[in-house]
Order: sequence, then structure tokens, then C-alpha cells
Amino acid sequence: MARPDGRQPDQLRPVTLTRKWSIHPEGSVLVEFGETRVLCTASVTEGVPRWRKGSGLGWVTAEYSMLPRATTTRSDRESVKGRIGGRTHEISRLIGRSLRACIDLKALGENSVVLDCDVLQADGGTRTAAITGAYVALHDAVTWLGERKALAGKPEKVMHRSVAAVSVGIIGGEPRLDLNYAEDVTADVDMNVVCTGDGDFVEVQGTGEAGVFARDQLDALLDLGVLGCMELTEAQRKALS
Amino acid sequence: MARPDGRQPDQLRPVTLTRKWSIHPEGSVLVEFGETRVLCTASVTEGVPRWRKGSGLGWVTAEYSMLPRATTTRSDRESVKGRIGGRTHEISRLIGRSLRACIDLKALGENSVVLDCDVLQADGGTRTAAITGAYVALHDAVTWLGERKALAGKPEKVMHRSVAAVSVGIIGGEPRLDLNYAEDVTADVDMNVVCTGDGDFVEVQGTGEAGVFARDQLDALLDLGVLGCMELTEAQRKALS
Amino acid sequence: MARPDGRQPDQLRPVTLTRKWSIHPEGSVLVEFGETRVLCTASVTEGVPRWRKGSGLGWVTAEYSMLPRATTTRSDRESVKGRIGGRTHEISRLIGRSLRACIDLKALGENSVVLDCDVLQADGGTRTAAITGAYVALHDAVTWLGERKALAGKPEKVMHRSVAAVSVGIIGGEPRLDLNYAEDVTADVDMNVVCTGDGDFVEVQGTGEAGVFARDQLDALLDLGVLGCMELTEAQRKALS
Amino acid sequence: MARPDGRQPDQLRPVTLTRKWSIHPEGSVLVEFGETRVLCTASVTEGVPRWRKGSGLGWVTAEYSMLPRATTTRSDRESVKGRIGGRTHEISRLIGRSLRACIDLKALGENSVVLDCDVLQADGGTRTAAITGAYVALHDAVTWLGERKALAGKPEKVMHRSVAAVSVGIIGGEPRLDLNYAEDVTADVDMNVVCTGDGDFVEVQGTGEAGVFARDQLDALLDLGVLGCMELTEAQRKALS
Amino acid sequence: MARPDGRQPDQLRPVTLTRKWSIHPEGSVLVEFGETRVLCTASVTEGVPRWRKGSGLGWVTAEYSMLPRATTTRSDRESVKGRIGGRTHEISRLIGRSLRACIDLKALGENSVVLDCDVLQADGGTRTAAITGAYVALHDAVTWLGERKALAGKPEKVMHRSVAAVSVGIIGGEPRLDLNYAEDVTADVDMNVVCTGDGDFVEVQGTGEAGVFARDQLDALLDLGVLGCMELTEAQRKALS
Amino acid sequence: MARPDGRQPDQLRPVTLTRKWSIHPEGSVLVEFGETRVLCTASVTEGVPRWRKGSGLGWVTAEYSMLPRATTTRSDRESVKGRIGGRTHEISRLIGRSLRACIDLKALGENSVVLDCDVLQADGGTRTAAITGAYVALHDAVTWLGERKALAGKPEKVMHRSVAAVSVGIIGGEPRLDLNYAEDVTADVDMNVVCTGDGDFVEVQGTGEAGVFARDQLDALLDLGVLGCMELTEAQRKALS
Repeated sequence: MARPDGRQPDQLRPVTLTRKWSIHPEGSVLVEFGETRVLCTASVTEGVPRWRKGSGLGWVTAEYSMLPRATTTRSDRESVKGRIGGRTHEISRLIGRSLRACIDLKALGENSVVLDCDVLQADGGTRTAAITGAYVALHDAVTWLGERKALAGKPEKVMHRSVAAVSVGIIGGEPRLDLNYAEDVTADVDMNVVCTGDGDFVEVQGTGEAGVFARDQLDALLDLGVLGCMELTEAQRKALS
Repeated sequence: MARPDGRQPDQLRPVTLTRKWSIHPEGSVLVEFGETRVLCTASVTEGVPRWRKGSGLGWVTAEYSMLPRATTTRSDRESVKGRIGGRTHEISRLIGRSLRACIDLKALGENSVVLDCDVLQADGGTRTAAITGAYVALHDAVTWLGERKALAGKPEKVMHRSVAAVSVGIIGGEPRLDLNYAEDVTADVDMNVVCTGDGDFVEVQGTGEAGVFARDQLDALLDLGVLGCMELTEAQRKALS
Repeated sequence: MARPDGRQPDQLRPVTLTRKWSIHPEGSVLVEFGETRVLCTASVTEGVPRWRKGSGLGWVTAEYSMLPRATTTRSDRESVKGRIGGRTHEISRLIGRSLRACIDLKALGENSVVLDCDVLQADGGTRTAAITGAYVALHDAVTWLGERKALAGKPEKVMHRSVAAVSVGIIGGEPRLDLNYAEDVTADVDMNVVCTGDGDFVEVQGTGEAGVFARDQLDALLDLGVLGCMELTEAQRKALS
Repeated sequence: MARPDGRQPDQLRPVTLTRKWSIHPEGSVLVEFGETRVLCTASVTEGVPRWRKGSGLGWVTAEYSMLPRATTTRSDRESVKGRIGGRTHEISRLIGRSLRACIDLKALGENSVVLDCDVLQADGGTRTAAITGAYVALHDAVTWLGERKALAGKPEKVMHRSVAAVSVGIIGGEPRLDLNYAEDVTADVDMNVVCTGDGDFVEVQGTGEAGVFARDQLDALLDLGVLGCMELTEAQRKALS
Repeated sequence: MARPDGRQPDQLRPVTLTRKWSIHPEGSVLVEFGETRVLCTASVTEGVPRWRKGSGLGWVTAEYSMLPRATTTRSDRESVKGRIGGRTHEISRLIGRSLRACIDLKALGENSVVLDCDVLQADGGTRTAAITGAYVALHDAVTWLGERKALAGKPEKVMHRSVAAVSVGIIGGEPRLDLNYAEDVTADVDMNVVCTGDGDFVEVQGTGEAGVFARDQLDALLDLGVLGCMELTEAQRKALS
Repeated sequence: MARPDGRQPDQLRPVTLTRKWSIHPEGSVLVEFGETRVLCTASVTEGVPRWRKGSGLGWVTAEYSMLPRATTTRSDRESVKGRIGGRTHEISRLIGRSLRACIDLKALGENSVVLDCDVLQADGGTRTAAITGAYVALHDAVTWLGERKALAGKPEKVMHRSVAAVSVGIIGGEPRLDLNYAEDVTADVDMNVVCTGDGDFVEVQGTGEAGVFARDQLDALLDLGVLGCMELTEAQRKALS
């Protein structure tokens, strides 16, 4: 069974990471995984939230959102509904945790960085594209802080690891890398894998969307996820060099 | 006193209108007035809100929003605050009224179009760029409906007028066209002019931001606003041809 | 075509400004434009919002609201709906801007005044009545501050201009002053004009409710609006003397 | 110890009930208990809420609110805070229950009446003034329905009882009728008594604000409350005749 | 007419007060009035709300809530609805006032206690059970503070009174003590009586749910309420000894 | 390094599943994993949400919440804050997905079941205890529907799998089963494993709380998680027999 866009099962969609897409933020990256397009910006503010003051530690947090017509049919804005949905909350928290795994908050010093990941166009894998792009935006923001002598440690110490993420899934019994929307809705199992540039895991989330999955299926998905993250790590390195 | 970007007082910033920027919406335009960048999408749904059912009339509405880091410093998301601010409300209403002025709701038939205007980058004039871009997105959406034989009247009857908008202001006594952010914050008077392609007014909103203004100043601003709208109308015509 | 209440096209409705309508506020005015009845109160507090502290400047803001049955049919309360509607926001902001145009915030010193404009009965022109009445309430509140030696400048310097507002519109081709509700809903063009006592403009907002308008129509409406504001200024002077 | 306004312990403040204060509502009464001033309007709509449809029964409900500067210091609007406070909820429910006690919902037929009680000026006893005024507004609304032949029963059957309310309290050991604000804040015990025109109880709510109270104190307060309600009943009869 | 559970008209349901039901709170009591089951916890924090700082006085407040399926049919969660209902507000306020009546806030010193009363199962009388149980939880929390030398006065001075509450009502003309749900919905008059251990009243709230009530009925209900509170006081004493 | 409560690394805390803990719900289970105590109720309603009507499919959803003092320090209620937090949303969604994995929605027919999981006391593992208990409550609710001949398929077909969940983590390099709170806060890696009674995976969520984790660590945690789920499955079987 061929993939809708003719890819091999273990092939990523074309990935682009466009740095400095916006003029205002300290870091800004337009990340594209095929037709999925996410604008990741990193906003620096001096100081940290009140509960963290005096700790010597910095703070990194993330907010994910979709434009109402990023998807095939329009969704109501969460600002209009007056409340943030469960899916948005869940993804924002995942991005935040993933990015905090690649940063040394002590070396960051008492600075705060907010990573805004706004999905301009969605075609599957928005949360993993967001993590992959946000890493590059965060890297640029930390460099910006370093240039201003505003870090407690050296920039390379602050960003002591890289982090990237990809979705994997099983469709018709076949494990596949980087699902697009058409694949995502038909997947039996869906997993998001977040890895460091060294191939260690930061986060693993697997769900039997339409059923359950056995240990050997889980193992195959993890292998594929690590493979994808390694390629994305390489794309991040190129973008940052 | 020269303008910050060296323009003549009656000169627009470079304007681009990129159609089909997104793959999902029935109409989508990335409009740029210099560094101001707004994504305007038109989303069609069959039918109208309950209170309008059976009237034979269509419905067009607009929602304006800014990404949190579209601006020089980050703003909190309205979805996180749980409420929409007064400025957002005010601008969404202005865009909706302006677009309804250029469409024959009877010829549209019982279809609804939502115009989402999301500011990806702000440098003054976001509301007028949004109106100018949303007109083109709406035009594409109406063409799309026409191709599906879903209109009550002919497409050219539905879009019986074009509409464009521009800001004008007085800075240091000089009337200027299409203010960028640096000019906007120092303007004594600030006015938004919304015109049809025939040079009639759809909406006029003038505010003495830092003082008051005399009738001759108002007249000069109106002249300049009409002039700017005529140029924008021409840009819309080119984009649509 | 006669007006519903037999007025001349350039004739205001009977205007009354009842000062000290309430016992608690530092300024309180019941303003009536015909059947439209708005209670304007000015509440003084020492100090200014946090973001303005130490600036030496005062602060004036306004909140507009309608009682649920001020209108012909009952509207749900915004407190019950849990959110403020776009129209309310828009009008509150207009009133605030208009009143700040007539006050010297430096001479006010670090004092805050909130102008609450609650519509007890609506028959068109509620926002313009509110501005006209709120000016008188603000004047009384500034006098009150002056009596307590709490101003940074002299009272007459604080209130260095007067401000009044009126609606104008075109009905059946005829420009008319101070529309009541029956006229408002049938107007082709609707404009609110806010002027100082010297006839300068503070704010001009014109909307083609049912179509568009040409420059000569706009000019006729502006003439009429200034005329109306001058009469209202006279009424304010009498009330304050 | 004399009362602040020189009244006898068992003396009401001057009471006025001004019918038809507003032009739009089916019933509208400005009720004044001394300086306390509440606008009570009765809004009729045909039909009942969904959960009551087909029952043959009508529905009466009430909403209480205070203007922000009805009090000596300004309170934030509940619409701005985005939520209704506990006190407002509690009073709205009390008014609703009290008015439903005086109306035969079967004879009302499937009509709904909303009683809006907006405090324009507060000086103690706002909830009891609201109940007393709302009864008269409801009576007018029922008469209005009767004139349109829209009731299931005869008007006099619909309004089969009258209802009035008054506050009583103990200050310095002395039971007093109809406390004003200055007395209310110093009362040891505070009680609201809602009675029918026949002297039966509809609702009794007593609170030991600053301590507790014995049975004989409770008895004295009940006597005083019934006495006050009888006088208010007489004022309602006069207003309605 | 026998009671649904065979009790005498003046007989309470079996009452149990289980202290230390939870391991975390400073005081925690599972109170049961028959099938009604409320978890009352007392949470201590050092310090008081900002508006009370430096007063030397402590603060006690209460929050009441029902689990969604505490009742025969499921209710939506107030957290999901995004707002607290009127009934919840009303009961939380009643519990808070009642508990503050039994505590000397000066002797408590600048400490705060929140009493959370969560109804795990409802069968009538949840608010009175909550008050009765919360007293015991508060007592334990004060003892806990005393053991840590954190009170301004002696523990027995802090808790200078006990407080208990019970519902009474008239069903088919008969006054009954401690209504269960089946009785509550058929009651003509419903009253909640809150008493100190000495038989004084803290709060009395009577409502003619389905009609009105005469003075002798009110007297009979008060007698019954005091009787019930005395028995509950005895149960509290046993639980605390 | 010994565990705080002396358990072996692969040992569960004492597990109890008390059925019919509440009288009203169609299924109700108090589940305890050591000191963690969650009340799981299953509420049945006929019919399904509007968007699912006519599909022949049933619906199962879950809501998770914590009592404010379930934890060592009190948390504000989400109903008081007016919004549901990200953690609550995330867990509610996880429970809902897990339970839907064990039920045949076609055999359920057009019935809805809401699973409310309210944490009465928290000591780590509340979400996994909730899933484990909710399965039993759902089973009882399906049996209840079966007894009323309200299912589209046979009860054993509706509940075609069992589901249980447990947390695992690495502390000081050692993989451990069923972490309590003291262990949870010190874990380097934290994973929740949801399994069917046959040992297949429903959901796997692993997070490097304080660092990252290698593939062999992940494998060890998965082994331990499956082991724990098998024991919990046995406890569920006993409870249901």
C-alpha cells in the first residue's frame, strides 16, 4: 500500500526551517514539514515569574495555537470561546517540557523565554514540527542573550542538547514515519517521539487510536521515531550553521 | 521632516497581495503593507446563522487577531486571558462592516463567509491592510461558490463593488499616507479611510490622538485617504486578474 | 419627509443636564436627549494604575453599559453572559478618548477618574449623550478635587477644553441632526461627531450603514455635527454656571 | 440612642413608588426607600424556557444588580470581572422566589416575566426595596398581558397575593425597622422579612452579623418586620390604585 | 402520614462524624446525616488576605461544592461551565458566616483557614451537614495551630462557641426535623436553623417553597430546629472528646 | 536504596476496589492505590451528543478532578478560577481514550456514559488509579444497561477487553513500579502505561522529568508497567466476580 504522497515508509516529508521569518522576535522560525507550516517565535524577557525569583534559574514555556482556518474546515477561535481546549493545553505542555529538556536553566540565568508556536497551516504532525522549529528559535534567542552578555553561563552551556520530534504510526500494519493528515486519521497506532540530538528520549507518547498495540509494534515505532529525529537534528544543524 | 523610511508624504509603502497562500481556505491572501503582514482567509459554509434562516440573505463576518509576537513586545493571547479585548472587538467589527458594504447579500444567497484576518507581523496599518486583503480573499471565495453554482445571483453581481482601506495621519503638521508604527505613535491625528473602488466612502474614523483637529486638516486627510485607496484598488485589480 | 417627532432637520431634541442626580459620586449627571436618558457618574480615586505611577500624570477612563430593558426588547446582561460585547467595548473606548481630549492629565496630577455611563433608557444617540453628560460630571469631579487641593494644576487648566458629541445621519437623502432610534435604524449613513467647545474635532466616525456615501454628503454631515455640538456646548455652559 | 435620621425605631423611611418611570418595559417602577433608589422593570416575553414548555405554567425570574457608583465607593462591574458575585446571585434568587410566591403561574399561562432590579443609588435595604417595587412592576406587566388577552386566567387570579419586604435589625440592643446603610453596618443582627399583604411570611432571613441572637430578639424582629411590610403593602395599594 | 424512613417527626437521621478522614488537611471530617455524606476539610495557611494584613485578625472562609454525581441525576461541573452557580455561592457564604460566628478572629491571629465542604453523596440537608462537620474540622485545625504555638490567643478562646445546623420543614401540615431529599422536594416550608451550642441563633433562613407560612408555623419550626441543633452539638462534643 | 514505604521495586501498593460506594450512580467504585483514593462514578444517559445521533454508536467520556485539599497544600478550585487547567484536561482526555479502548461503542448502542474520577486524596498515580477504577465502574454501568435491555449488543461484547493502568519510573537509576508522591517528585523518568487484560498497550506516555532516557531504560519501564497492569487486571477480576 503506497503512501498518499508516494514516500517510503521511513521517509520524512521535505523539511524547511526558515530563520528570522519575523522582524520583531529574538528568535523566529517558519518550520515546514511538507504542507504543515508553523511559525515559532521566541520572546525574551528579563526576569522570571514571581514564584521563581531569586532562584538564579531561568524559565522557558510554550504556547501552541492554530489559526482558525489552518485546517480543512474552520474551527472557532479559543479567544472567542473564552477558554482553551484540552488538545491545545496538552500540546503546549508537551512543547514546553521538551524544550526545557534541552536548556540549562541555571546557565540561562533569570531570563524568561516564551515559545509561541502558531500553526498557519496544518497537515499532520503540527506538534512535532513545532518542537523541531522551536528548538531553532530558542537557540537564536539564547544567542541574542549571549551577545548582550545577559546569560549566567556560556551560550553553548545553556543549549547543552538539541531536541527534535517526529510522529510515527502504524497504517494497515505498516510502521510509517512522519504521518500527514490523511495518514493520521487512518492510523491504528499513533506515536510522537521527542529525541535529543544524541538519540536519547525526551518524551514518548503512543496511543492506540483504533485499537491496541503489541510490544513488537511499539519497538518498530520507536526505531522509526529515533531515525526521523536524527534526520531532523541534521536539518536543525544546517539551519543554525 | 523626512519620513522614517524616506517615503513621500502621499506615498504608500510597497504593497503585495499573495493569493492562495494557504491550501485549505476557499480564499486566502497574504497582504503586506511594508513590514505589516496579515493573513486573510475566507471560509465558506453553507447556510446562515439561525436568526437569518429563510431570509434568502447570506452573511459575511470578520475576526481580527494578532499573533502574540507580531509586535515589538509580546502580548498575552486573548485565548489565555479568556476574553477578547476592546481593540480586537472594534477592529473585527470595522472589517466586517466594510466587507459587507461590497457584497450583495441577496445575490450571495444563504451562504456564510467568515473572514479571518490574523496579523503575523505588525508595523502600523494592520486593520487597513486586513480590509484590503480580505476583499481579495472574499472575491476568491465568491468565485469558488460561483464555480459550484452555489450563489443566488451572478458572481459579478455578488461582488458589486470593491473595497480598500488605508490609514492617514498628521505628523508635525504634515498629512501623511499609510503610517508605519513609528509614525503612528507620534501622530497628532490618526484616521482610517475605507473607500469603494469608485472613491465613495464606506467608513471614516478620525481621532485626535494627541489633541484636536480643524476642518481643513480633516479635509486634507480625506483627500489623501481617497488617493491611497485608489492605488490599493488598482493593486487589488492586478492581483485578481 | 417629516421627522417622526416633527423636528427640523437641523434641530436637536430637548436636552437636559441634571447635575448632582446621585449623592455618592464626586460628579453625577443625568443627561437626556429627548427620551434617551443616561446616568453619568465620575468617580475619583487617589493614585493611578500601576503602569502610570510616578509619571506625574493622571488617568481618565470610561465604561458604558445599558440596563437590560433600556431598549424596546430586553437584552441579556453582559455580567450574566460573562463577557462584554464588541459594541460596549467600542463605545466605552470612544467615550474615554473623547474625555481625555478635554483634560490636561499633567494638571490633573496622579488622580484617576472613572466615568460610568449607564443608559437607563435608550432612544438613539446614547453614546453622544453619554459624552456630553460625562463632560459635565468630569467637570464637577475636577472641581471637587480642586476644593480639596488635590490637583497638580489649577482647575481651569485641568479642564482646558469642553467636549460634546452628537449623531448625524442621512435619511432618504436628507442630512439630519441628532437621530432618534426610529431614524437611526433607517439611516443610510450614520455619523458621530465629537467636538470641542471651539468647534475643533476630537473624533469623527462615519459609517455607510446601508450603502456608501460621497464627499459632499460627508461634508454636509460634518457641518450639521459641528452645529449640534455648538448648541450642546451652550447647554453644558448653562448647566455648569 | 437616636437613629441617624431621627426616625422612631419602628418608623419606615419615606417610601415612593413611581410607576411608568421608563417607556419601554411592560412594567417599570422607581422605588425609593429614603435615599435608596432601585429601578424595577418587568419584561414580558411570550413562551417559557425550553424545560417548561407544554406545562401550561408561566415563569417569573429576577435579576438584581448595582450600578458601579450606586455606593459610597465605586465597585468594579461584574460584566468587566466576567462573573457574577455571590451576593448578587443570592439577592437575585431571593427576589425571584419572593415574586413567584405572589403569582399563580398556571393562571399566568406560558408567558415569562423577567424582573430587573437595578440599584441606581444604595443606602441600605436595596433588596427589600427591590422586592417591594418589583411587585408593582409585575402587577403592571400582568395587567398589560390581561389587556392583550394573553393570560390563561383572570388578572386578579394571576396576582392572588401582594408581597412586600423590609429589613429589620438590632442596634445597641434596640430592634429597628428599615435600616439605612449607616445602621446596617453597625447592626448586631440583621434580618430581611418578606410578607404577603395578609401578613403571612414568604421568606425570613436572619443573620447574627456581629454575634448571635436569642429567641426573644428574633420574636421582636419578626413583629417589627410584619409591621413594616403592612405599611409597604398600603403604599403598594395606593400606587396601584 | 409516616416519614419515608420511618422516623419520628422530631427525630434526626443517624449522624456520624469521622475525624481525620484524610491525611493531608489540618482538619478533616466525613460527616453523614443518613445517606448525605460531606467531606469537610480545614486548610490552614499562615497570613491573611492582603486587605486584612496588619489587622491582627485571622480569616475563615468556606467553599461548598457537589461532585457531579452526588445526586440522582448527573449535574455538569461548575469548572466545566466556567462559572459558579447561584446556589453554590449562596451556600458557601452561609457556611462561612456560620463558622465565623464560632471563632474569635483576634485570638486566631493572622492565620487563614479555608473550609472545603465537598458533597460526596446528597440526600437532603447537605448545607446543614456541612456546617455541622466543618465545625469539627475547624476545631481540629485550631488545635493543630495551638500545638504549633501559632495562635494569638488560647485555643479554647479561639473556639469560644460551637455551631451546628439542621433543616426543618412542614410537610402535609406537620413540622419535621432533618428532611431527606424525598421530603425536601415535597415540603411546603423549608427552613435552615444554625445554632450555637448554647441554643442561640446564628442564622435562620425560612422559605415558603410552595406557599406562605404563618407565625405559629414559624415558631414550631424554630423549636424543632433548636432541638435538632442541641442533639448535633452533643454529637460534636462526643466526636471531639 | 530502599523505597519510602519499604516495597520491592516491582511491588504495587495495596490496591482496593470498593464497588457501589455511592447509592446514586449506575456504577461507582472507590479505588485506592495505597493512600491515593479516587471516587470513580459511571453515569448513564440515554442517547448520545447531537453530532453522533443516528450513528448507532454510543459515547464514553471522562472527567478528572481533584478536591482542593486532596494534596499536601490546598489548590484553588478550577470552578472558582473559572477555567480548567492544562493538567486536568490532559488527564481527562487520557482516561476517556483508555476507557473507549475497552468498549465496543456499536454494541453499547446510542447510550452515553460519563466517567467522573474525583481524587479525594492524592499520593501519586491518581490518573492510573482513576483508569483502573473507572473500568470497574463502567463495567457495572454496562451491566445495569444490560439488565434493562438497553444495549445494542450483549454485555460481554460491549466490554470486550479490560483495561488497567500503572505508573513506573526510574529513581536513582532503579526502575520502580507504582510510584507514590515522594518518589514521583524525585523520579528522573516517569511513565504511565495503560494495558488491556491481555497485555497489549492502549497508551504509553514517558517523560524525562529531570533529564533524558535511553532505549534500555525505556524497555525496562515497559516490562515493569506490563507486569503491574497484569496484577491490577487480576484485582479488577476479583472485584467484579
